[in-house]
Amino acid sequence: MPVNYTTPSPETLFPVAGIRLGLAEAGIRKLDRRDLTLVALDTGCTVAGVFTQNRFCAAPVLLCRSHLESGSEIRALVINTGIANAGTGESGLQAAQETCDSVGRLMGVDASQVLPFSTGVILEALPVDRLIAGLPRCFGDLKADNWHAAAHGIMTTDTVAKAASRQVEINGRTVTVTGISKGAGMIRPNMATMLGFVATDAGVAESLLQQLVREAADASFNCITVDGDTSTNDSFILMATGKSGAEFADDTAPGYAELREAVTGVALELAQAIIRDGEGATKFITIAVDGGKDREECKRVGYAIGHSPLVKTAFFASDPNLGRILAAIGYADIAGLDVDGVRVWLGSEDGEVLVAEKGARADSYREEDGARIMKAAEITVRVDLGRGEARGKVYSCDLSYEYVKINADYRS
Amino acid sequence: MPVNYTTPSPETLFPVAGIRLGLAEAGIRKLDRRDLTLVALDTGCTVAGVFTQNRFCAAPVLLCRSHLESGSEIRALVINTGIANAGTGESGLQAAQETCDSVGRLMGVDASQVLPFSTGVILEALPVDRLIAGLPRCFGDLKADNWHAAAHGIMTTDTVAKAASRQVEINGRTVTVTGISKGAGMIRPNMATMLGFVATDAGVAESLLQQLVREAADASFNCITVDGDTSTNDSFILMATGKSGAEFADDTAPGYAELREAVTGVALELAQAIIRDGEGATKFITIAVDGGKDREECKRVGYAIGHSPLVKTAFFASDPNLGRILAAIGYADIAGLDVDGVRVWLGSEDGEVLVAEKGARADSYREEDGARIMKAAEITVRVDLGRGEARGKVYSCDLSYEYVKINADYRS
Repeated sequence: MPVNYTTPSPETLFPVAGIRLGLAEAGIRKLDRRDLTLVALDTGCTVAGVFTQNRFCAAPVLLCRSHLESGSEIRALVINTGIANAGTGESGLQAAQETCDSVGRLMGVDASQVLPFSTGVILEALPVDRLIAGLPRCFGDLKADNWHAAAHGIMTTDTVAKAASRQVEINGRTVTVTGISKGAGMIRPNMATMLGFVATDAGVAESLLQQLVREAADASFNCITVDGDTSTNDSFILMATGKSGAEFADDTAPGYAELREAVTGVALELAQAIIRDGEGATKFITIAVDGGKDREECKRVGYAIGHSPLVKTAFFASDPNLGRILAAIGYADIAGLDVDGVRVWLGSEDGEVLVAEKGARADSYREEDGARIMKAAEITVRVDLGRGEARGKVYSCDLSYEYVKINADYRS
Repeated sequence: MPVNYTTPSPETLFPVAGIRLGLAEAGIRKLDRRDLTLVALDTGCTVAGVFTQNRFCAAPVLLCRSHLESGSEIRALVINTGIANAGTGESGLQAAQETCDSVGRLMGVDASQVLPFSTGVILEALPVDRLIAGLPRCFGDLKADNWHAAAHGIMTTDTVAKAASRQVEINGRTVTVTGISKGAGMIRPNMATMLGFVATDAGVAESLLQQLVREAADASFNCITVDGDTSTNDSFILMATGKSGAEFADDTAPGYAELREAVTGVALELAQAIIRDGEGATKFITIAVDGGKDREECKRVGYAIGHSPLVKTAFFASDPNLGRILAAIGYADIAGLDVDGVRVWLGSEDGEVLVAEKGARADSYREEDGARIMKAAEITVRVDLGRGEARGKVYSCDLSYEYVKINADYRS
């Protein structure tokens, strides 16, 4: 059960003019589930994406990169769950290509105008015939208010569908930003994410959209970890249809700051939803690291804490075994870190307490305060490295029996 | 229950002339257990050590480094369990100093001739008065054949005591190497280990001993991981008493290769025993990476596989979900890695099977072969990176419910 997260209801997910979505049961890996999603874009949209840095990246990721780089006007996204089409070599690439060919024929566009996405088991062949057979049903199902269904359609080990939507007024026009994401395990995106798709009806120039997708990923999907495993299929796609009439040519355009905030806000909501639904998660943990020389070292400390199985099991047990946090800070490989200058706080919505300073437990710290905070479902670990002005945040969850159960059972 | 490991019986642990050990119940953290160990060295021994690189290193580690660097002839080691005396700041350093002072007075040596070691809970104060009160009983208990008892004395979450011993003939003399280690969680030594103490009655010049301790650590304790957490207290100490009459001045000395092999062999046995007793471990996993450009990148790939919670839970479930191994290789951050050149085998004592090549599952691979191997308690993952001649090994274990239970319960 996710930590303080429920899927937004269909009526709260604003359609994005210029985007329609359709689903079908293709029987990719399991029967009786809608495992194939088609997203159709009107002409005149811009699309940008960031992708996994995993060297065993999946065939669809290779095609996505190539189609985006080719400069083709993207007109469709096709997403299957069940099989990741990763670790599938040349035949996997052919399967992804055939998928794009079929979508292209169906929609009357070139295959290079289609972006393919897959998620699921690695090292198994994509049943491309079944996928292609399902496409006409997706096409027949295309509609603008299908975001809620699509959020369900892209799930794998997720226990809840993840979606976020907001409308903001920019330059007197109503701009919509709506997105969906999936992911619960193999979560430690590197420059990208699990699957995340966000669309806006703002018009955004292609180079600016590329900048925005990187910024949004960096502030959201690139700040989360469940298990430290970077997936082969992480992809985050941002689509801008321009149908609202609000247009942005570069980052000095009036109102662009508001658009960036809306897009980044939706991306962060989607990324946090992945952590809230992290495999076996019972706690949502924000690790806020301040006082670093640069953001990179702050995030390094955040990830050391957020990845540590010992820290994560202590959170699961609500045990303020805070020495494990200090140990993680200590092995985060921060050159020249003066541990006497490091301070650590533990907090919940009821406030925070200073836990450690001057290389030791703070004199004012009381075990019962730590124990009380550790019982909360939403906990913040705040670290001040005491050596600069930079800051960074990482979002993580605890490590429970259920994590082991899910991952020992998955695939069986 | 450890994987294929039982503590050697007392009579198989050869005493090392020049070394005596004594134990006592000091009540450091729990009653009714021998939690304090004193190791006394005759004059004329050489001692070298390597220590954790964790920046929050424990007070005793700081004193060890300082005493070894001072050039004092080391005459005693004092080891307590229960409290790690880490994250204890200035007062922790005083407690470690008082411990050395007391041992010095008891043995008629200077405090700088004493090396202190602590292991247990971080961020809590060492009850130094109780420790000091226990020292005379340790002193009264000193004897040469106490290695078996000492192996038990230094345990924390360990389920079995860990010791190794061998005698080799070098230059016509019988040389003994005997050692003990402890550790089961917070295991990912970086340049050092959890606690490991190895003694030989060979005589080894100090600079050569320093070289040997690094080589031995590098081939043993620096190749293991349970949970990726580098402890604040890791220490590996090598003592050479010279009582056998076999003397080694530098690494060109006749017979030094045999001594190095014996010492490294004992260290590797002790390190592997830690993995076999890894918290919740049901499988012992060797990850052998060949064909790298250098040893460092081979070990990086080995650790990526050995740390991955997804790989570890798949091993626990005996599920040949081998895509998770490919994903880990892919995110190990090996610049310019050509995944088409990577080959992966899975093996047990019954032989090995090729799992993946050319970026995909090997044509010859059959799921039932993978499933059969995954059921074994001792599994080897062999990876050929296909880009060089270097190789490296990492030893790891699986991730089970029991790991979560132990670490959620520890301290409670």
